[in-house]
Amino acid sequence: MRLKAIAGSTVIDGTGRAPIPDAVVVVEGTRIRAVTARPEAVLPPGTEIVDGSGKYVIPGLMDANVHLLLPTPDTALAYEGRYRDLIEEAAQVTLRSGVTTVFDTWGPLDPLVAARDRVNDGLVAGSRVFMAGHIIGLGGLFTPDFFATGDVFGPETVERINRKWEQGVGADLLWRTPEEIRRRVRDYIARSDIDFVKYAASGHGEYRQFIAFSAPAQKAIVEEAHRAGITAQAHSTTVESLRMEINAGADLLQHPDATGLEPIPRSTLKLIVDRQIPAAVIVNTDRQLDWVRRHGPDWMRTYVINDTRDENHRNMIKAGARMLLTTDGFSCGRAPANHPSRRAYVNCPDPLYTLGESHFLWLEAVSERGMAPMDALLAATRNVADAYGMADELGTLEPGKYADLLILDADPLADPRNYRRIAQVWKDGAAIHRDSLPTAPVLTAGDITT
Amino acid sequence: MRLKAIAGSTVIDGTGRAPIPDAVVVVEGTRIRAVTARPEAVLPPGTEIVDGSGKYVIPGLMDANVHLLLPTPDTALAYEGRYRDLIEEAAQVTLRSGVTTVFDTWGPLDPLVAARDRVNDGLVAGSRVFMAGHIIGLGGLFTPDFFATGDVFGPETVERINRKWEQGVGADLLWRTPEEIRRRVRDYIARSDIDFVKYAASGHGEYRQFIAFSAPAQKAIVEEAHRAGITAQAHSTTVESLRMEINAGADLLQHPDATGLEPIPRSTLKLIVDRQIPAAVIVNTDRQLDWVRRHGPDWMRTYVINDTRDENHRNMIKAGARMLLTTDGFSCGRAPANHPSRRAYVNCPDPLYTLGESHFLWLEAVSERGMAPMDALLAATRNVADAYGMADELGTLEPGKYADLLILDADPLADPRNYRRIAQVWKDGAAIHRDSLPTAPVLTAGDITT
Amino acid sequence: MRLKAIAGSTVIDGTGRAPIPDAVVVVEGTRIRAVTARPEAVLPPGTEIVDGSGKYVIPGLMDANVHLLLPTPDTALAYEGRYRDLIEEAAQVTLRSGVTTVFDTWGPLDPLVAARDRVNDGLVAGSRVFMAGHIIGLGGLFTPDFFATGDVFGPETVERINRKWEQGVGADLLWRTPEEIRRRVRDYIARSDIDFVKYAASGHGEYRQFIAFSAPAQKAIVEEAHRAGITAQAHSTTVESLRMEINAGADLLQHPDATGLEPIPRSTLKLIVDRQIPAAVIVNTDRQLDWVRRHGPDWMRTYVINDTRDENHRNMIKAGARMLLTTDGFSCGRAPANHPSRRAYVNCPDPLYTLGESHFLWLEAVSERGMAPMDALLAATRNVADAYGMADELGTLEPGKYADLLILDADPLADPRNYRRIAQVWKDGAAIHRDSLPTAPVLTAGDITT
Amino acid sequence: MRLKAIAGSTVIDGTGRAPIPDAVVVVEGTRIRAVTARPEAVLPPGTEIVDGSGKYVIPGLMDANVHLLLPTPDTALAYEGRYRDLIEEAAQVTLRSGVTTVFDTWGPLDPLVAARDRVNDGLVAGSRVFMAGHIIGLGGLFTPDFFATGDVFGPETVERINRKWEQGVGADLLWRTPEEIRRRVRDYIARSDIDFVKYAASGHGEYRQFIAFSAPAQKAIVEEAHRAGITAQAHSTTVESLRMEINAGADLLQHPDATGLEPIPRSTLKLIVDRQIPAAVIVNTDRQLDWVRRHGPDWMRTYVINDTRDENHRNMIKAGARMLLTTDGFSCGRAPANHPSRRAYVNCPDPLYTLGESHFLWLEAVSERGMAPMDALLAATRNVADAYGMADELGTLEPGKYADLLILDADPLADPRNYRRIAQVWKDGAAIHRDSLPTAPVLTAGDITT
Repeated sequence: MRLKAIAGSTVIDGTGRAPIPDAVVVVEGTRIRAVTARPEAVLPPGTEIVDGSGKYVIPGLMDANVHLLLPTPDTALAYEGRYRDLIEEAAQVTLRSGVTTVFDTWGPLDPLVAARDRVNDGLVAGSRVFMAGHIIGLGGLFTPDFFATGDVFGPETVERINRKWEQGVGADLLWRTPEEIRRRVRDYIARSDIDFVKYAASGHGEYRQFIAFSAPAQKAIVEEAHRAGITAQAHSTTVESLRMEINAGADLLQHPDATGLEPIPRSTLKLIVDRQIPAAVIVNTDRQLDWVRRHGPDWMRTYVINDTRDENHRNMIKAGARMLLTTDGFSCGRAPANHPSRRAYVNCPDPLYTLGESHFLWLEAVSERGMAPMDALLAATRNVADAYGMADELGTLEPGKYADLLILDADPLADPRNYRRIAQVWKDGAAIHRDSLPTAPVLTAGDITT
Repeated sequence: MRLKAIAGSTVIDGTGRAPIPDAVVVVEGTRIRAVTARPEAVLPPGTEIVDGSGKYVIPGLMDANVHLLLPTPDTALAYEGRYRDLIEEAAQVTLRSGVTTVFDTWGPLDPLVAARDRVNDGLVAGSRVFMAGHIIGLGGLFTPDFFATGDVFGPETVERINRKWEQGVGADLLWRTPEEIRRRVRDYIARSDIDFVKYAASGHGEYRQFIAFSAPAQKAIVEEAHRAGITAQAHSTTVESLRMEINAGADLLQHPDATGLEPIPRSTLKLIVDRQIPAAVIVNTDRQLDWVRRHGPDWMRTYVINDTRDENHRNMIKAGARMLLTTDGFSCGRAPANHPSRRAYVNCPDPLYTLGESHFLWLEAVSERGMAPMDALLAATRNVADAYGMADELGTLEPGKYADLLILDADPLADPRNYRRIAQVWKDGAAIHRDSLPTAPVLTAGDITT
Repeated sequence: MRLKAIAGSTVIDGTGRAPIPDAVVVVEGTRIRAVTARPEAVLPPGTEIVDGSGKYVIPGLMDANVHLLLPTPDTALAYEGRYRDLIEEAAQVTLRSGVTTVFDTWGPLDPLVAARDRVNDGLVAGSRVFMAGHIIGLGGLFTPDFFATGDVFGPETVERINRKWEQGVGADLLWRTPEEIRRRVRDYIARSDIDFVKYAASGHGEYRQFIAFSAPAQKAIVEEAHRAGITAQAHSTTVESLRMEINAGADLLQHPDATGLEPIPRSTLKLIVDRQIPAAVIVNTDRQLDWVRRHGPDWMRTYVINDTRDENHRNMIKAGARMLLTTDGFSCGRAPANHPSRRAYVNCPDPLYTLGESHFLWLEAVSERGMAPMDALLAATRNVADAYGMADELGTLEPGKYADLLILDADPLADPRNYRRIAQVWKDGAAIHRDSLPTAPVLTAGDITT
Repeated sequence: MRLKAIAGSTVIDGTGRAPIPDAVVVVEGTRIRAVTARPEAVLPPGTEIVDGSGKYVIPGLMDANVHLLLPTPDTALAYEGRYRDLIEEAAQVTLRSGVTTVFDTWGPLDPLVAARDRVNDGLVAGSRVFMAGHIIGLGGLFTPDFFATGDVFGPETVERINRKWEQGVGADLLWRTPEEIRRRVRDYIARSDIDFVKYAASGHGEYRQFIAFSAPAQKAIVEEAHRAGITAQAHSTTVESLRMEINAGADLLQHPDATGLEPIPRSTLKLIVDRQIPAAVIVNTDRQLDWVRRHGPDWMRTYVINDTRDENHRNMIKAGARMLLTTDGFSCGRAPANHPSRRAYVNCPDPLYTLGESHFLWLEAVSERGMAPMDALLAATRNVADAYGMADELGTLEPGKYADLLILDADPLADPRNYRRIAQVWKDGAAIHRDSLPTAPVLTAGDITT
């Protein structure tokens, strides 16, 4: 097999080591064979040389929380037979913008599995996808947890759509004993072919102040994930549900920074830091925060994007928490007319939660809040791979790992805005054709796209 | 061209004349060539003989008011690109059940035109379709006139769907002067290729107690229809809007029997009878009325299917009004969960408004209310053709007209339930393959069908 | 009886004549005895002299359309037994601000009659009150015409409150024949002790694009008012409902300027001007219009306070229509949370529809639109009295009329803002104690007041 | 002080001992002096003798869970200044029907305290009242926890009403740390003068599947109650929230029988029985259950009054759980139009939750489910007093206790319907004038009463 070599660039390999100037990255097939300073590079004849002079090579970015399909009610119905297409389209939007791996933490199981397999098997282009299916304990798309559709649809439609999401581990579980929850979760894992488990430590949407599962129930869910050899993460939105998921042994904390009216207590933060529990946090830029403060509806200011959250971010950075690039980004079509977040989605100067854009904002935001440039890069690469138990394959530019990388025109450690200056995106050892992504635009083509 | 002859049946030709026993109906191409008693029949050699002995031949039934597509919100979105298919499917449901011609009085213009042309040109099977497009003065599908969708969809979706229906002659017209209304209606007729005009003399849904257009505006609309050489009909729901549409010169009255709290005043009924204005009335069976009285929500009992309406039906029959078979039947998918009429659609012992079924119920209902059997047959055939200005082509079994006819196993004049005993449905001079209809089941195939 | 004389002021007597400098207004009891230039004044000994030097005396202002009680749902229930008190309080707010006579055009009959009688009989202070009770053809307070309360209250509560307003001439009338409407209106007038009739030519609220009563029904209502010796006025919101009420013979047009998407047609305006039909118009200042343009929800911009309305005002002034000071002012407690007009009521720089304030804005607004100062004064005094058939008693400072007058510190013809510079308000021949009004603050005292 | 003696009746003293035939109950002032068989009775001269021959004397009934004021939105506003009156009226309705002591477990603090003090100080008639004020952790009256009022009221009204209930320990607490919750609860107890604490172990209304407080937070609340020397009880609606409140040390379980989709697990039931934790259960008659099964909306059948609950009742009785008479009865005015429980409140053959009636049904219901007659009597008397730590004063007919008792015309142990056959109700040592209760009917007088 003919080798490729990116030669002459500065390589920031994602291990935390200092950048290597004038380096050579040697790629063999889909994997990295070597990363060395130029003088040490030994290239067989016939190696295809890519000139990297003046460029910066970093591992492909990894997003710890996306929703490749989080459709509004109209989109959910209008494209009911084409969810797989929409998911693939979204994975192409992320790939194009430098995110070579995404972790989908909530969506309809069957099309997600199908799209993941097609992308990961190389049948279609797209960011590498890993997925959780449903968030255990929440309701489906057409419930107050996500979109309350009231009486506009017939019950058959509501149930049909919800079933695509809930997969037998919906909100009904909250009524059950820990033993019964354990049985149902085990069954779900066994038949669903998911990559990791996500459960609700607290409610969602208008239920977010409540605890969803008791301590024994949370423990049972985590244990079942581990028994199946996969990681477990939890959604939390209050200080107590956060504490409970940590006690339950969650491997990854989804938005532990969302704690509503009180910042993360010191004792809880200490646990997170001491144990280096991966913390997937959604950090906003000053500009976004300022916009929300001025325009957002009350609940948003108070509970979702608010000063408590900002305080948590600063405290976590200062204390040395292990943070992960996390956008909660999604592709959904337009928000319903009076959805509380509509204004924020659509009018915000730097749109929140937009796939293909929000990871850049995240990197700028953590910089604004004082995170060291190298730490930010690790948060967007190695730490995510580590958190999901994929450090052997992904996250750094080291021999034997997948050759997923970005070639940038400027130094991302010098200015976080340089992550936007993408010259090339490589995945599986080859540069992708960014300009042709998405290959079959649907939501991104029409007037109902976000 | 080889002739066909249905020989030996009793023919009720739809002219009002007595049935002809042992008759012969001779068909040449798509048209009727002769209808005679057997002794008088002269059949060229090679004529294909269909044995009609023991059967009854009547003109194909005609329904003066259907909605081949009146989708619920979920259906409207889930099948957004396939309205033409759904319309054709509905026209096949009606054809199969003996209705050879339908008049579609409200629906999305473009797919209706496309489906009508395909059916009427013989490209696909289906009842002969004539159509009005939008009801001038009402809002589109996603408005309180039909389905109030609240905030569940984004405004772009609501507007996109409504535009498919409204076509520039929506509720906005109510704000205008008669002159401006005239201009817009003229423009709509000119560009829309519709077969007849329908306008709102009163509001619809929760607006039904109001008058929609003033007297001069109504006159202007009727005049514009006539200027274009087509008929004009009006929707009315109150005693005064009914009187106004008659004064405006409407050629056909849609549900004049719906007058809410007061029966049709004697003076108005006299006008209808004296001028023999075609009255498209939705008549219910005793069984249906009884069900509604016991189960229907209040508004339904009072305003839509109620004792006033029943009283109007009896008065009209007694006075000799010119009534037309009218079902308001539609195909829509399931009604939304709390739609006021959901219970009536779905649970009623003899479903109301169901294409393929409700015309049979209508014929039974007028019989229960005292209409003579021959009058009922004329109401379902010749009178409808007359009312729509198509008496030269349709409505009776007379030489030169389209050979649209039913062969029944039993005498419909003896018992109205015999209209259900269909041996064959002929359209355009040929028996249709009833068992293969609809040819491409969509709504009728799945669990979201009415 | 001892006489009083206001001496030395400039008197603008409301007849349209030039101001009389250094004049004397002689008051005997509750009436005016004479208005003359000082040299001509003959004052009996013992006459109480009020020094008017440097002041301006004008007739008390008259507002052609107020709602002394238009409560929000919470206010309606919290004060259910005290409506009369609230009405009297509102009449004191208006009196204090110089409006000596108000015409209440919609409210709960019994407490309105009681409060009117107490005020007009001199038992309590307050602007002279004349009243219509319910607007014939509309629904009560807890209907979509005013406040749709959904399912928050039990049906008994909704019905009980609505009955207080509807009085048997509610929206149910729209279903009836003109003959039946006539009977019911006659009965309502006979038993209600109202001062004038108001009916709905068009719908209200979300029904405003519809015509409420047919032409014969409108005629019947007007005839019944005239038969009872009182005037009839109509509410209209479209160009056609306006034309219809004029044809029906309405004595006064309520907000003919509200015509939604089209300005008043030339022919209709000509009728209004030629016949000098009193036109009660709600005119807004530039500042208000600007605010609404920038902040108002869509429907408000388009249909209620919009450019069409402004265009109508300018056209009416130019053409010489007989306009009346009309505020539609009310006292209601806070607007419900999402009521479409909440923002306008509460946040508008110069609040709309606020009793005690909005008449001043009206006078400034007509000035901005080009009405001559003397015409504005007549619109706020004599023309209102004329329109309501009370020119013999009210509206000008002429011998024999009620001595209702304002003493101003500055010339209102020089600057409309000078109407605010009230030195004294006289009613029934005596200066009222403005500082003690309202005498028993309820809504104006608490935090739920507008 | 002159003594009174009820002589000749059968006394069932509430201690569990066998009935004493031909007994004498001697009352001195407000207290019982002796209960003996007639031969043993020593009565000083002048003792007032009440002939009890043929009668049955039992302790006054005690209801472990009522809401003397749980007003619907219209009632809450219409009677805003008169809550104390309504509470006293309700306490008179209960007293009249034989319930001499009620425990109010949720309501507006200030009027409850005022009414309790007036009743308990003997200023007004009424059942002895003990009260919790607000349920810690729930929202106020106008929140989705109780009545979602949507946008019908202004926010000021909603907040004002909610403050009357929430008292600083509302749903906002759910966001807090256990330490902060402890501080706020301590403060609430210190300033509120309540008799016992009630907190939400789970959510209420549409939130009932969620856990409200974490385990440490529940412990903190219970500890604060105990520190203040009062009992703590919890509301639970799921199997896990029930288990958690037991672990937290709750002294009394409110509706532990409401466990939604799963019956109480065996291990939890064992805890309840072994520790004899007082269980306040709402038991329905067969007739009620049957009605609900046939008519109730889905959620009611499934989650509130359902077969799971019935199964729990039977299991608890069989296992020997310590059950308390508990009605959750309230006085509220009519339910809002579409409130899910409206149909059950109003149409149920034996109305649910109706003060003055539902305790009789409870006694019949436990009999139907197999509870021994004497156990039922104890559940309605001594056990309630015990559970609330008032066994020294109330609950049995023993010397030194309050002379609260019923004289019945028939034996309640023979047939539970005999509890309805009340001859006299004594409270504080005197027969009350039942016929004059309530002394000032408000809700019970008008058409808006339950």
